[in-house]
Amino acid sequence: MLTNNEIKLINSLQRKKERQNNGLFIVEGIKMVEELTQSNFTVRKVFSTVEMEGFKQLSLITENQLSKISQFSTPNQVLAIVEIPSKPVIDYNQSSLILEDINNPGNLGTIIRTADWFGINQIICSNGSTDCYSPKVVSSTMGSIFRSKIHYTNLEEFLSVSKLTSYGAFLKGKFLSEINLSKNCNIILGSESHGISSGLEKIIDQKITIEGITEAESLNLSIAAGIFCNHYFQSNR
Amino acid sequence: MLTNNEIKLINSLQRKKERQNNGLFIVEGIKMVEELTQSNFTVRKVFSTVEMEGFKQLSLITENQLSKISQFSTPNQVLAIVEIPSKPVIDYNQSSLILEDINNPGNLGTIIRTADWFGINQIICSNGSTDCYSPKVVSSTMGSIFRSKIHYTNLEEFLSVSKLTSYGAFLKGKFLSEINLSKNCNIILGSESHGISSGLEKIIDQKITIEGITEAESLNLSIAAGIFCNHYFQSNR
Repeated sequence: MLTNNEIKLINSLQRKKERQNNGLFIVEGIKMVEELTQSNFTVRKVFSTVEMEGFKQLSLITENQLSKISQFSTPNQVLAIVEIPSKPVIDYNQSSLILEDINNPGNLGTIIRTADWFGINQIICSNGSTDCYSPKVVSSTMGSIFRSKIHYTNLEEFLSVSKLTSYGAFLKGKFLSEINLSKNCNIILGSESHGISSGLEKIIDQKITIEGITEAESLNLSIAAGIFCNHYFQSNR
Repeated sequence: MLTNNEIKLINSLQRKKERQNNGLFIVEGIKMVEELTQSNFTVRKVFSTVEMEGFKQLSLITENQLSKISQFSTPNQVLAIVEIPSKPVIDYNQSSLILEDINNPGNLGTIIRTADWFGINQIICSNGSTDCYSPKVVSSTMGSIFRSKIHYTNLEEFLSVSKLTSYGAFLKGKFLSEINLSKNCNIILGSESHGISSGLEKIIDQKITIEGITEAESLNLSIAAGIFCNHYFQSNR
């Protein structure tokens, strides 16, 4: 059973404003929705073409119905409406990956997934960053979003309160390979097009560079994040 | 000046078959097209809303005309029709990044860009991999495609001819951090969904794992490639 109002609601949740107004977002795909049962997220309703364990509010629907609410060209069996969790409390003593004005949803999702792999579960985004509950971000996290705490805040304020060492990714700085990242630290990455802003640059403790051959213009943001997170993990094994 | 036949040709080059039939592909954006002047690629024609140095076959067009041939929702000043280079000769003595059945164009483009950053310019793709001259791959490389040699071939044949040490990315293997990658070697990554095939697994010298916290499912393919390439670079500084 899938009502017209439900179709309308689900499709409206493609838009950030409607997600915020309703406090809801969409999770798609069998693997992702199964991961929800292991998480603290509250599932409002599940629409599925197959029987699934673990959900009270499950509606069996046809593939044709699923295609009406799915964002995928080949929908993957199930779609869930999930509550956006209430604003988490920032832990200033825990390592954070900090993203300034990230605007590519695929990059944000991949970075959340990568940070989770390396044990960093607190992500701090500047207020101008892309919304982590958009369908593209959620699907790119491959479920890591359910294990991560993602905050949107003013980064200068955050860094002025945090007492941890802050490392920022710059094109000119100390080589990443020549430094050990502290067990509890802040790793800061700037936007895809502009890098770290000058305001933030002033309050970062250490500028870091990923060494490479210089002919190429730069690294993709999520690749840089991956290399930083891997180095963080290796520094603290 | 932009003829209807040109519009038709350019739009047809979105499809692999038409790119192959015509031996042509599309490069978009002012930065990317400018990089072409530094490359060995043959530019057939440039359509631009601004005057540009270095191109004989340049047609000034309006923004409205550009929007008819651009794949971008906000076109970026210029679009070039470029010849696909003739099949390069494989260098079996040079380090290669080897991709088995990679199917995400964004991943392939990002990997070409990343390998270029770390000085690996030979990419070997299995015959089943996504086409490197698709618009999405080309734009994701940010120009690195003009400096890279990209081959499509049978990977088992390639590895049976190559005498270099081959390292493959697996979920279970020796930790990457515990090994130095040889200066001349083959780095092999499997497909996004299936990893490295069993046929290839048998002829790989060393299985390698990127160590992490195990709750997350895996790393994105391009992130894994980035961490491998960074480690390759660091092993040979």
